[in-house]
Amino acid sequence: MGCCEGYGTKKLINDPFKVTIESIQGLVNAYPEIVKQIGPHVVARKDAPVKGKVGVVVGGGSGHEPLFIGWVGFGMADVGVLGEIFAAPPPPLILEATKAANGNRGVLYVYGNYAGDNLNFDMAAEVAVAEGIETEAVRVWDDVASAPPDRVEERRGLAADLFVIKIAGARAEEGASLSEVKLAAEKARDNSRTFAVALSPATVPTSGKPTFTIGEDEMYFGIGAHGEKGVRKTGLLSADATAQILVEEVLKDLPYRTGDEVNLIVNGYGSTTLMELFIINRKVNEILLNSGIRIHRTEVGNFLTTQEMAGCSVTLMRLDEELRRCYDAPAVTPALTRCGPRR
Amino acid sequence: MGCCEGYGTKKLINDPFKVTIESIQGLVNAYPEIVKQIGPHVVARKDAPVKGKVGVVVGGGSGHEPLFIGWVGFGMADVGVLGEIFAAPPPPLILEATKAANGNRGVLYVYGNYAGDNLNFDMAAEVAVAEGIETEAVRVWDDVASAPPDRVEERRGLAADLFVIKIAGARAEEGASLSEVKLAAEKARDNSRTFAVALSPATVPTSGKPTFTIGEDEMYFGIGAHGEKGVRKTGLLSADATAQILVEEVLKDLPYRTGDEVNLIVNGYGSTTLMELFIINRKVNEILLNSGIRIHRTEVGNFLTTQEMAGCSVTLMRLDEELRRCYDAPAVTPALTRCGPRR
Repeated sequence: MGCCEGYGTKKLINDPFKVTIESIQGLVNAYPEIVKQIGPHVVARKDAPVKGKVGVVVGGGSGHEPLFIGWVGFGMADVGVLGEIFAAPPPPLILEATKAANGNRGVLYVYGNYAGDNLNFDMAAEVAVAEGIETEAVRVWDDVASAPPDRVEERRGLAADLFVIKIAGARAEEGASLSEVKLAAEKARDNSRTFAVALSPATVPTSGKPTFTIGEDEMYFGIGAHGEKGVRKTGLLSADATAQILVEEVLKDLPYRTGDEVNLIVNGYGSTTLMELFIINRKVNEILLNSGIRIHRTEVGNFLTTQEMAGCSVTLMRLDEELRRCYDAPAVTPALTRCGPRR
Repeated sequence: MGCCEGYGTKKLINDPFKVTIESIQGLVNAYPEIVKQIGPHVVARKDAPVKGKVGVVVGGGSGHEPLFIGWVGFGMADVGVLGEIFAAPPPPLILEATKAANGNRGVLYVYGNYAGDNLNFDMAAEVAVAEGIETEAVRVWDDVASAPPDRVEERRGLAADLFVIKIAGARAEEGASLSEVKLAAEKARDNSRTFAVALSPATVPTSGKPTFTIGEDEMYFGIGAHGEKGVRKTGLLSADATAQILVEEVLKDLPYRTGDEVNLIVNGYGSTTLMELFIINRKVNEILLNSGIRIHRTEVGNFLTTQEMAGCSVTLMRLDEELRRCYDAPAVTPALTRCGPRR
């Protein structure tokens, strides 16, 4: 991988222009006890809309599975809406999702901070309000590589989507108001930071082309989930050296300090094996413990992927009582199941 | 991927000869509330040995994560033991695992049907018995491509490991005796069939070389999880045509018939995206429904991987009341969490 400029990866697909809707159908077919299909691009938890509960709508481009619709279900998102691969969902689809989530206590949008998503969710919100549905939005911007700390609102959203959606979903399940759910989701976002590295590009199904080129022995730190410009190319580093860089960039940004308690995600982007992610986690764990930072919960796996891109990211969320409680709360979704505080 | 003969994939590792033990450490670091480390190659559920319960020991070569140690925990395996990448664990390690699982009601071994595993588990069993621990073994042989139906005991083990381990773990949790747990696990195995396809090889970390070579537009059906000889090379087929072949080979082998109720696994081997697996599942679902076969539960994801090999497999397990109940029973492990019958 990463060796053949211009040569894309073989894919198990049918019509490249139907991968999004066929993939969504396949997910709904797999988990009929958890979700139902509202439209070709919209999936809701089976019992949506839940009357008297704030609705949580999540979405963005497809191609990052299990992100977003993998987290639709009890305790997380009420409805997920996907655009085509790496493309924001159009406003009418977001409106369709909004209506499916509307339990008459308002709807919170949670999505990654990308220009297309921002525009389309804002446009959908205007129509929703005109139709009598109150909405709020939390844009996730955890990627420290994409703008300096004094301009966080220019940063891209990465794996902290998982934290923010879990917190919003749990708070909504507790019966909180729209403003309370929004505040909790913002707190989750504001206490989260991510730094990422890629070893090989993804192939976009419609073009068959890699998202970027990289040398056989290169790594690219800070690159975005769609091949956006990164901050540093290096030679091929060891897992421990890689983990050191990823954690250091995250720690110094918030900054996280001795005595903090955090949740941790070691996220794989696609073809990086779970074996490698565990080796990364081993070092991340060691560095955090040596820094006097306590890890409450760790997630290791593929959460926000970029097709079959090789690489990983480290995300921390600093906890307080509310964030800890909401993250530990039960959830039943295709990609994340939690029975209670002890998982 | 698959394009460059002799050129392996970049990996996030340290010493290639330490990937197994470092990966195991990283898993234990991530899930300290579920598992504990017994030795560098052995992981047990946190409360092992569970007195008065049959112990379930699973294992085999590493490099297939989350297979084996990802399923150690409440309701599944008591202890997992891993050899080096694609290599059976040596008998002394299996004995170490056996002792860690021994709650004085006997220990059941569940592992894939490979010569090295068979030999080493048998040798460990001999010593265990001499030390007063009764053991039984169930070898998983679900791969229809690897021998004809009248020689099932020559077939390789694939993703049905998940089914067999889940059934054995649940039955043991119910308080069943060693012979009862073994019978249930054998029934799970005997009602399960798998057929697989690969699109690109895996790279073995120690050699840096791919496990096999394949053309840019080729697929290889029936290939084993370590690059063992398959049954048919084809051109690059659509997801639907691929699903059709995979399901047909599985259906006709047992055979599965109209009116049967099954559980289904659409397993990814590594770098095949969840998006592709859902597209495959969409067609598998359609074919099974059209065949009058009812799907009780579907699992879509990476369960038995072969490093970053691209490809997938379809596994069915025909259900009766006991298998349905045991598969639906609660479990809390790093890679599979189930809160109860509704997941």
